[in-house]
Amino acid sequence: MQEGQAGRDTVRLRIDLAYDGGDFHGWARQPGLRTVQGEMEAALARVLGTSGSAGGRRAGGRGAGEPEGWVPRLVVAGRTDTGVHAAHQVCHLDIPSGVLSGCVGHMDAAPESALEHRLQRLLPTDIAIHRVQRAPGGFDARFSALERTYLYRVSEGRDRFDPRLRGFVLGLEGSLDLDAMNRAAATAVGLHDFGSFATPNPGGTTIRQVKYAHWDRVPGRPLLTYGMGAGPAFRTPAAESGLVVFTIVADAFAHNMVRSLVNACLRVGQGKRDADWFRDKVMHPLREGSTGPVAAQGLTLEHVAYPSDDRLAERASAIRAKRTLDG
Amino acid sequence: MQEGQAGRDTVRLRIDLAYDGGDFHGWARQPGLRTVQGEMEAALARVLGTSGSAGGRRAGGRGAGEPEGWVPRLVVAGRTDTGVHAAHQVCHLDIPSGVLSGCVGHMDAAPESALEHRLQRLLPTDIAIHRVQRAPGGFDARFSALERTYLYRVSEGRDRFDPRLRGFVLGLEGSLDLDAMNRAAATAVGLHDFGSFATPNPGGTTIRQVKYAHWDRVPGRPLLTYGMGAGPAFRTPAAESGLVVFTIVADAFAHNMVRSLVNACLRVGQGKRDADWFRDKVMHPLREGSTGPVAAQGLTLEHVAYPSDDRLAERASAIRAKRTLDG
Repeated sequence: MQEGQAGRDTVRLRIDLAYDGGDFHGWARQPGLRTVQGEMEAALARVLGTSGSAGGRRAGGRGAGEPEGWVPRLVVAGRTDTGVHAAHQVCHLDIPSGVLSGCVGHMDAAPESALEHRLQRLLPTDIAIHRVQRAPGGFDARFSALERTYLYRVSEGRDRFDPRLRGFVLGLEGSLDLDAMNRAAATAVGLHDFGSFATPNPGGTTIRQVKYAHWDRVPGRPLLTYGMGAGPAFRTPAAESGLVVFTIVADAFAHNMVRSLVNACLRVGQGKRDADWFRDKVMHPLREGSTGPVAAQGLTLEHVAYPSDDRLAERASAIRAKRTLDG
Repeated sequence: MQEGQAGRDTVRLRIDLAYDGGDFHGWARQPGLRTVQGEMEAALARVLGTSGSAGGRRAGGRGAGEPEGWVPRLVVAGRTDTGVHAAHQVCHLDIPSGVLSGCVGHMDAAPESALEHRLQRLLPTDIAIHRVQRAPGGFDARFSALERTYLYRVSEGRDRFDPRLRGFVLGLEGSLDLDAMNRAAATAVGLHDFGSFATPNPGGTTIRQVKYAHWDRVPGRPLLTYGMGAGPAFRTPAAESGLVVFTIVADAFAHNMVRSLVNACLRVGQGKRDADWFRDKVMHPLREGSTGPVAAQGLTLEHVAYPSDDRLAERASAIRAKRTLDG
């Protein structure tokens, strides 16, 4: 398993999921706190009838090949913080093949589909399982990933705010200068030490490759009045119309990096600082002068990209060598 | 005020707002239940320092013209049911001019702006005030309205569901036949007695003029992988991408009408019924054969349209004569 491969009697599963981070203390399991990993592993233990089960109900029989005391442990692509959401998160699970086949029970389905279905039914409503599948050879949810995309959503002014979005949008009073924010954000693109914006892990660095960083307004889709002009011209409005959204793509992100970049951009957009101040922070990483992270609620892990199947193992070894301590 | 006009010493205000209906027992005030009207009127009483005040804190001095015992009472365009949301709701308030001017306090603002600001600060996070303004002559939030637009949002299948939207989207397993649903919905357009889909008010009818009724898939906005093709081609994805949305516009809606039409359309989309069955229900209003309403969570009042200012009073008298008992 050290080489990112499941063993002979072990299957590696890839699990794609989404969650509303509002009621979670982030992804990573922590004793006594509600976390996404904690909920997922408890649900897996219950569905698989293993010793880690919370409650002990078994969905199917125990397989012949199950080692005593095996408990499900997930490896994730992006460890999100408290309150951060995921529209598309990826994790993997190494599971003894006997345990996996045991979850089919009375279902007429492949073991992965049976597991997907049982997880969907068991998990709380703030986690959605999109897919459970066998991972291709060499796949590692964390180390094979090519890049992560995060979005940060902001509403300008209270006069258009939709309260249904308050769990994943930051509401700001006043308007933002998007041109200035984009002049600032452009200086973050490239290979930089983001020490002004991020905290390194012990022994790690804050050097990252930002591939894209841009602010946009979600185009409005107005509901036109019936009978005006040549005929009815209704279009379904999007609840997100008019929001201001930051999209950032990088090979990986250091801790607090996206939220601190967003906070600095917002200061520029509100006229409190200018794009030169931002660029100087990118060029001269100074932790003392760090801009703190903005509220977590607006942040969403939107996408994790992987290379084609034949490049997975190569990518994982290169990244593991470079970044084991570094996230 | 009977003629839709504020009196000589009374000002009529138009209030535009939005709310997340998830924690409300609908719009209309009810003793002992949390309703949007109840929260709004309590906040108005508190901001205006009137006798209806919950708590009695006064934002400004009491005006000279305030009648003893005046309490704020709102008239609304669309009385939403328990759990139904509003992205754009409109109501009006007749207020003694002395009471209104009293809410300015130490602010350097017009009374309407002061009221707007104070309401925004006082109201809970599931109500957003978009605007408070003086209503034009003849304006009546309920009786001047030309038409109301409702949206109903559905997610097909669990494999793409975004848990952040679970408060305002109905999650369904399996896929829907939108062509069949649109063949059905088209038969609802026009002047019909919607007795198969709605409950009349006492003394009222279920005859309504539907102007538009259509199902759409919200177009996906895929996040393209960096570096593929000619260069980066990122687009900010919308959380609503891929949802199935029903848009319906009518002069007004009878009780349960939208949700019952949606329920019947979904049966057609799931292949349990066909478009002819739906059309027969439109053509032959039979309350016995009524299709019940679908879950409230997916329904949103999206828009209320009014005529130009010079047609407001004319519209209100025509509608009041026809529909006072009828909603």
